[in-house]
Amino acid sequence: MEKLKEVIGKIEKIDYSLAARTQKRLDSLTKPQGSLGRLEELAKQIVEITKKENPRIKNKVIFTLAGDHGIVEEGVSAYPKEVTPQMVYNFINGGAGINVLARHAGARVIIVDMGVACDLEPHSDLVIKKINYGTKNMAGGPAMTKEEAIKSIENGIDVFKEEVKSGIDIVGTGDMGIGNTASSSAIASVITGKPVEVMTGRGTGIDDKTLSNKIRVIEKAISVNKPDAKDAIDVLSKVGGFEIGGLTGVILAAGSRRIPVVIDGFISGAAALIAYQLEPKIKDYMIAAHCSVEKGHKIILNYLGLKPLLDFDLRLGEGTGAAVGMTIIEAGIKILTQMATFQDAGVSEKAK
Amino acid sequence: MEKLKEVIGKIEKIDYSLAARTQKRLDSLTKPQGSLGRLEELAKQIVEITKKENPRIKNKVIFTLAGDHGIVEEGVSAYPKEVTPQMVYNFINGGAGINVLARHAGARVIIVDMGVACDLEPHSDLVIKKINYGTKNMAGGPAMTKEEAIKSIENGIDVFKEEVKSGIDIVGTGDMGIGNTASSSAIASVITGKPVEVMTGRGTGIDDKTLSNKIRVIEKAISVNKPDAKDAIDVLSKVGGFEIGGLTGVILAAGSRRIPVVIDGFISGAAALIAYQLEPKIKDYMIAAHCSVEKGHKIILNYLGLKPLLDFDLRLGEGTGAAVGMTIIEAGIKILTQMATFQDAGVSEKAK
Repeated sequence: MEKLKEVIGKIEKIDYSLAARTQKRLDSLTKPQGSLGRLEELAKQIVEITKKENPRIKNKVIFTLAGDHGIVEEGVSAYPKEVTPQMVYNFINGGAGINVLARHAGARVIIVDMGVACDLEPHSDLVIKKINYGTKNMAGGPAMTKEEAIKSIENGIDVFKEEVKSGIDIVGTGDMGIGNTASSSAIASVITGKPVEVMTGRGTGIDDKTLSNKIRVIEKAISVNKPDAKDAIDVLSKVGGFEIGGLTGVILAAGSRRIPVVIDGFISGAAALIAYQLEPKIKDYMIAAHCSVEKGHKIILNYLGLKPLLDFDLRLGEGTGAAVGMTIIEAGIKILTQMATFQDAGVSEKAK
Repeated sequence: MEKLKEVIGKIEKIDYSLAARTQKRLDSLTKPQGSLGRLEELAKQIVEITKKENPRIKNKVIFTLAGDHGIVEEGVSAYPKEVTPQMVYNFINGGAGINVLARHAGARVIIVDMGVACDLEPHSDLVIKKINYGTKNMAGGPAMTKEEAIKSIENGIDVFKEEVKSGIDIVGTGDMGIGNTASSSAIASVITGKPVEVMTGRGTGIDDKTLSNKIRVIEKAISVNKPDAKDAIDVLSKVGGFEIGGLTGVILAAGSRRIPVVIDGFISGAAALIAYQLEPKIKDYMIAAHCSVEKGHKIILNYLGLKPLLDFDLRLGEGTGAAVGMTIIEAGIKILTQMATFQDAGVSEKAK
């Protein structure tokens, strides 16, 4: 718990004293004031987060954390749990969606086993931070112990700390775990206080009958475990997942170093909720990449007060939305740092 | 007119026979079916447009066309018309928003003088296709002759044809011209049949009083000239602009070569409307990059049936939105062409 407390203690409230100055600089560039809209907003946010007047986004890192979920025993997913390790190997081999989009964005992908239900073959591109062989079935009791919950967050912190040595200018969050939309719906339902029904979607693509069952199972998990909405560790331990806890750690650790965090979809959103409950100041370090098809995601974004960059009907996870979002954020930074001013370019300004 | 007719004659109706096959291929990739939403839609659209099963987006070209507008005499803009040539020099020197975002997207920018109101210094990076020294004030009569309108479209075709020799896989449209939102509002109002008032916004940032005047002036231009909504050349000549006609030519020429066109903002939208009136089949070659702050833009997009990629409060023009859009479209193509299949990666498929 010490490691987590230390990281939380280092998360500073963002002061917006730089905002007016950055806006003035944006207004000196050869374009009508404010005419690059959200791109300008992104540039300002990155300056505020990093406290750097000329931020650079060179080292982009997406953390894709994997874990299994005991709840799959209840038949809540369209895919068998074997897909979790299979997809981890796919990540390692560079064939998954996140690999393609991270290459496109010029980002490194850090693949982490936070709790896959089998032993994975060691590989130089795989970080093993396994807490356990998947969570327990939350419909019958807590998904993990309180110690495991804390450890999962702290392992996420460790993964970040190890990688930051190689340089990180922006973080993207990503997940892999068959069954993890069920866990995320449970977390989001408990923390936001919204019914499970409005918080639960089709995940990888289940039919109506399986969806009804999924809702029932999540409701059961909440009624059996009675997670305390005010205690994020309690929520994580009772209805969470190891990769979700790990992402919470990554998000908090990035904020503690004043590094912007691009939040991917629904599962990353659940991790962001836990991070926010632990330390509300972390919210201003987050940028929401997109609004997912998974219907609870919009509720999470509203709860956190985040406005997504894209509305693209994505529902893959892995950090795919975060990767696309990064390319847009980088565009905003370049506007701030690379455009000519009216004075430099000899362009007439607006009549006063 | 022969050149224009020839290009229009070459625009083929897109047949969607490849769509099912492309979807099947997308569904063979290691992700739940349809889980990359709009990125998959974009990949399919590019396959359909190009008729290539493995399209590549290597040569990205943004055509940024400049022209002046006689209507500025009426005080419709926040900036003096000197800004048009000044910005052209800024484009040449690489300091403008479009330069920064095109570099980010890996796109070439082709800068064209379609009708700037002064002689520009020759430069290897400036294409001179000047029709005239700005349009005439449309509030008092036609902005240009019918011959000039046709010539502006054909010059746009020529610019495209010259550049396609160096390779073009995707086109972006861009504009520069003080006063050109007034012209675009007039075009869009006439073609869509919507009142000038709902079609007219603040352009580069005018105040309420100037906006009222702008609306009045555009209404006057329409009532004086009585453009025939069914005759796009008539509309272009009476209330259009040289850069707008040029963009119409670029759009049609790209479609005639089965090259996708990323439509930027409001002015590009007006050019797209003219292209669509000339040949409705061109619509399926268009991808709308974003929905602009300029309020008539949403009406144009609805009229064309285009769903914008971004909603970013952009209102700069130059092709800036198109540049950002291109990076997203490229991401969609890479998903189709670079992801591993379930079979290749040894990942279990969804239970049937």
